[in-house]
Amino acid sequence: MGKRVAVVLAGCGVFDGSEIHEASASYLHLNRHIPVKIFAPSIDQMHVVDHLKGSPTEEKRNVLVESARLARGDIQDLSELNVKDLDAIIFPGGFGAAKNLCSWAVQGKDCSVNEQVKTLLEAFHAEKKPIGLCCISPVLGAKVFPGCEVTVGHDKDDRYPDVPDTAEAISQLGCKHICKHVNEAHVDEKNKIVTTCAFMCKAPLHEIFDGIGEMVREVLKLA
Amino acid sequence: MGKRVAVVLAGCGVFDGSEIHEASASYLHLNRHIPVKIFAPSIDQMHVVDHLKGSPTEEKRNVLVESARLARGDIQDLSELNVKDLDAIIFPGGFGAAKNLCSWAVQGKDCSVNEQVKTLLEAFHAEKKPIGLCCISPVLGAKVFPGCEVTVGHDKDDRYPDVPDTAEAISQLGCKHICKHVNEAHVDEKNKIVTTCAFMCKAPLHEIFDGIGEMVREVLKLA
Repeated sequence: MGKRVAVVLAGCGVFDGSEIHEASASYLHLNRHIPVKIFAPSIDQMHVVDHLKGSPTEEKRNVLVESARLARGDIQDLSELNVKDLDAIIFPGGFGAAKNLCSWAVQGKDCSVNEQVKTLLEAFHAEKKPIGLCCISPVLGAKVFPGCEVTVGHDKDDRYPDVPDTAEAISQLGCKHICKHVNEAHVDEKNKIVTTCAFMCKAPLHEIFDGIGEMVREVLKLA
Repeated sequence: MGKRVAVVLAGCGVFDGSEIHEASASYLHLNRHIPVKIFAPSIDQMHVVDHLKGSPTEEKRNVLVESARLARGDIQDLSELNVKDLDAIIFPGGFGAAKNLCSWAVQGKDCSVNEQVKTLLEAFHAEKKPIGLCCISPVLGAKVFPGCEVTVGHDKDDRYPDVPDTAEAISQLGCKHICKHVNEAHVDEKNKIVTTCAFMCKAPLHEIFDGIGEMVREVLKLA
């Protein structure tokens, strides 16, 4: 196919970095068609979470260094990413996307997006190159491109009354939230933004895997 | 299917823990059929490797705590694993298997196997419950069960003249090394040991993924 796609990571582990299975699935689905280039910003993680206890530790870890675990060392600093060299960009989810790439985890719709990430998203959008976002990463699209369409799964989920209503916050940003099942992806044709909800839904891993496959296929179609 | 399978991790990251994509693929292939129980020993990693530079750091990390990243927190201490509650056990690869679960990375065929891991392998074997091993993990089988058959891919690979010859070391332990392609698994019917070479071969991720799928299918068939 000859398409060139970047995957941008935000660490390694669902609670403080990229969700590992989403990142691996994105990489794998792409890899069936094309080689993949992996990037991450060289910045401190917002914090480090002990994934056994579920609570923050006193440690410091760097997003690029930890992301290199997922990339088996074959990774570049996000500052080296040149939009001209690529046809599409994909952001897996995990709290890292909402903690390290923007401040959504703390500030919700009033968050700020990392300047490097914001500039890149705007550049891909301006060049009409597709952007794939999964799990919580669609908030990056919603924050940077008001008016766009994204999915994070279903609207307010009665099973989780205490969980902040991400779909509602996305609407408040002037975007349109589209309800989709976990094994589906939504395509905003106008903005070339492709989203799938992944672990935002409590679903078996293989359904999440299939949804990410849909997202990757749609991104490659648009590229 | 109702089978109950344990996946045993050795950290999180190819150079000092479990190979992330192998672990995710094992989990995913199993998850299409059955829920999975994930375990890891609560021991210090042999060392921590900066996966960006490829060199060890001064840090200390715990195998169970880091493995919890791959398990999204849903993991148990290996000491809690009861063979009676399970029908099969699978060990993904990565240097963690050869550094934290045994000392193969340092001592080759003269390595020692972690006592907890050795006892478990012997217990599954005694109960005629299948054992799945991928990448470098087959050396655990070769060390604990002399005479068994395993694959780590091909015999001495001329492309990597400086890499220690794992297949030869396995033969020296009195085991039979079977050459297999990356998308295949070898079944030692007598010992109920199923192996696939995964990242021991320089192959595209999707072929490694398919080989792990074969390994999982054969393990479930034998369980």
